[in-house]
Amino acid sequence: MLSFQELSVQFNEQFDTKHFPETPHTLYAPGEYFLSIGGKRVRPVMCMMGNELFSDIHSDAFVAARAVELFHNFTLVHDDMMDEAGLRRGMPTVHTKYDVNTALLVGDVMLIRAYEFLQNIQPSYLPKILKIFNKTAREVCEGQQLDMDYAKMEEVTMEQYIHMITLKTSVLLAASLEIGAIIGGASENNCHHLYEFGKKIGIAFQIQDDYLDAYGDAANFGKEVGGDIKQNKKTFLLLHALSVANNDQRAALAELLNNDNPDKVEKVLDIFNACGVGAWAENLKSKYLQEAFDHLESIAVVSARKQPLIELANYLINRNK
Amino acid sequence: MLSFQELSVQFNEQFDTKHFPETPHTLYAPGEYFLSIGGKRVRPVMCMMGNELFSDIHSDAFVAARAVELFHNFTLVHDDMMDEAGLRRGMPTVHTKYDVNTALLVGDVMLIRAYEFLQNIQPSYLPKILKIFNKTAREVCEGQQLDMDYAKMEEVTMEQYIHMITLKTSVLLAASLEIGAIIGGASENNCHHLYEFGKKIGIAFQIQDDYLDAYGDAANFGKEVGGDIKQNKKTFLLLHALSVANNDQRAALAELLNNDNPDKVEKVLDIFNACGVGAWAENLKSKYLQEAFDHLESIAVVSARKQPLIELANYLINRNK
Repeated sequence: MLSFQELSVQFNEQFDTKHFPETPHTLYAPGEYFLSIGGKRVRPVMCMMGNELFSDIHSDAFVAARAVELFHNFTLVHDDMMDEAGLRRGMPTVHTKYDVNTALLVGDVMLIRAYEFLQNIQPSYLPKILKIFNKTAREVCEGQQLDMDYAKMEEVTMEQYIHMITLKTSVLLAASLEIGAIIGGASENNCHHLYEFGKKIGIAFQIQDDYLDAYGDAANFGKEVGGDIKQNKKTFLLLHALSVANNDQRAALAELLNNDNPDKVEKVLDIFNACGVGAWAENLKSKYLQEAFDHLESIAVVSARKQPLIELANYLINRNK
Repeated sequence: MLSFQELSVQFNEQFDTKHFPETPHTLYAPGEYFLSIGGKRVRPVMCMMGNELFSDIHSDAFVAARAVELFHNFTLVHDDMMDEAGLRRGMPTVHTKYDVNTALLVGDVMLIRAYEFLQNIQPSYLPKILKIFNKTAREVCEGQQLDMDYAKMEEVTMEQYIHMITLKTSVLLAASLEIGAIIGGASENNCHHLYEFGKKIGIAFQIQDDYLDAYGDAANFGKEVGGDIKQNKKTFLLLHALSVANNDQRAALAELLNNDNPDKVEKVLDIFNACGVGAWAENLKSKYLQEAFDHLESIAVVSARKQPLIELANYLINRNK
């Protein structure tokens, strides 16, 4: 059994190459640029781990992993346009470095390229994998739409937020694992539990993301701490604070959200702390992690094979960046 | 053998339904809106004709036709954003009626939905059809990129323009026919000739499009006549005029292209006429039509089965709107 790090090296060896033809250069060079700026490659490695949970890694797992990573990058290129984000992983986003029309087409062609990789996997499980891939891809778009909708809404419930996060983030982690599992020959029941494991990990992952934005160490985090607070983003932390705050705290939060005071981040964090938001987030994360492990437990393979997934889950959920 | 009109009725019966789930309404209602504003449905019907050239229509031909039409509409939604077009088929474009971010996601999800239809076709030819679909989809993106590149270039050769048109327009017509042919059980050689037939028809179709923009009857055309001229669009007509014009005419054209005089369309048309552009375009169209018919001739089925394709080609190439 290989660890996340070992599989990551294997994946990157195959992935760090040209992804597109040479011409038209105006379309494909920006695509190569974006794919060259890196990332943790969590999803493709999860695809390989899904395979290795059940059997030796098949070359199709690399191909599917590559499709998953291209799909993920397609969503980033288009999301960055929607969010008007100037930087991604510390580098200029495609629409910033080139222009909006180029970014639009680069995203489109990256999505198509993902399907071009999928077309090469074994016909025996191609339809099954294509179905999961398509369903997931559409759900990720739904999640992005809900994220934009929620930004405009006055009130969003915790239930709505978790639904949005599930679509926007969790289902792709879950599907990456399941696609790998199918290639590894897993039974339907095992696939189901692995998918649910991925979904729960995805939610815990997002809780950690929201937590780091408020409580992360700027030196490690790689992003500005408090960015979500400045943008009034609805996060696990803010939604919980709003739900448990007393009237004074709620009024103070509303006031802070409606203005851009220089000490906004600090004051919102004071209310978060008074509401015990940090400990609550830790608890919620543990709850999802436990649910994830319960599903992993239900998968009928020897425990030793599950070790890399347990390590990955702990890493994703406790990471400091 | 059914005519284009008869197949069109059959296709529309199946296509005129909901294409997406109900929620999120903010994502799917704009998608339904755009698909409801119609269109000639040339590509899906070509897919069905490709099938019927070789055998009775299989239900998979409807499914693939639907995927092709969804793909085509995805390109329209994103192209309209890039062109900043306010109207499509006389109705507001998605980014105009809703907003740019919605249009971006609606296009994405329409492309994914196309693949969701494809996933349901018979596994025996799914990989083959997926390959053609992917290759074509990427080529259409390349064509759109070249179109944008050429708009910024001082000089574009006829060869470059035909290459761009082939990618942007022809290959999807060709692929629609070929996908249908595969479902109909056609041999590789027959598929090849049918694809080439579609490609040649596509170029002739574009010559007619460019011709109508300059010489169409406004009452029939449905668009403003001279729109391409006003926008300095490189068309078959302009490129030919530039290549045969004498020095005075070329200087006059350059002057007209650099300004927005109220009589610009009229004056450019005067030069087009002096250069014999109309007759040249008719000739070129006939040349491509003949090449298309030569490929059709090479397809090994009885002549009677080819009749609907001959009628369709003549209609597309001589249409007045």
